[in-house]
Amino acid sequence: MKEKRSPLTKFINRLYRYTQSYTDDALKKFNLSSGTYPFLLMLSKNEGISQNQISKELNVDKAMSARAIKRLIELGYISKDLDEEDSRAYKLFLTDKAKTIIPKIIIEIDNWIDIITKDSSEEEQELAVGFLRKALLNAKKYKDSIG
Amino acid sequence: MKEKRSPLTKFINRLYRYTQSYTDDALKKFNLSSGTYPFLLMLSKNEGISQNQISKELNVDKAMSARAIKRLIELGYISKDLDEEDSRAYKLFLTDKAKTIIPKIIIEIDNWIDIITKDSSEEEQELAVGFLRKALLNAKKYKDSIG
Repeated sequence: MKEKRSPLTKFINRLYRYTQSYTDDALKKFNLSSGTYPFLLMLSKNEGISQNQISKELNVDKAMSARAIKRLIELGYISKDLDEEDSRAYKLFLTDKAKTIIPKIIIEIDNWIDIITKDSSEEEQELAVGFLRKALLNAKKYKDSIG
Repeated sequence: MKEKRSPLTKFINRLYRYTQSYTDDALKKFNLSSGTYPFLLMLSKNEGISQNQISKELNVDKAMSARAIKRLIELGYISKDLDEEDSRAYKLFLTDKAKTIIPKIIIEIDNWIDIITKDSSEEEQELAVGFLRKALLNAKKYKDSIG
């Protein structure tokens, strides 16, 4: 009877869901949700990328990306310009309205991290982040390897 | 300019999504998905609990739970009995068909954990699991505190 079963994925799944409800609540005042704010944070570091690139980077399927981006354009957070090198593609940019709220989004996310890590030392948190970084890289490699 | 921003939630969100695609693929042969298999694992440890309890334990909203359980009943994995103490509630049980595949589900999940932790030591993994366990508890407390 080996009882090796690690609660790792269970913990990640549940923490994800708590994080989702927190961000849905905390970002409601900006008309954002757990499903849309990552697009703004991603664009803040990569202005001008395409819908396909952003959906690949965030590992969100294309239909879901398209819906989120449409919503963010309606809300005035994202603008799109035709890509001069590829007439079928659009480059996405943050509007000034988005740039204004991004620091506020980051404060809310930091606040959540403070809440969930309040009884962990800086060192524990760094170790866990390092572990998760490696796990994520392995997950990405695995997905790429199966095509 | 403090650049304190921790990638913790970003890593959890992305790892969650990779885990979801892995489990969707790996469990397709049982007609299960990332959204349904946790109900079977939860029931395997708590047979006879109600739909409300399971939805609270898994931190999944009631509508989503209802859909998942309906699907699992259709697939012949779950049966429900009227609760004799509360005529509006049902107790949920695993069928023999479910009991047969649960060890196989666990093998798939363990395989995923092996993939993502392959370059981490046992100790690193234990530390990270301990960290996530505390984070999850804090998340739960926070959610309970805001009602």
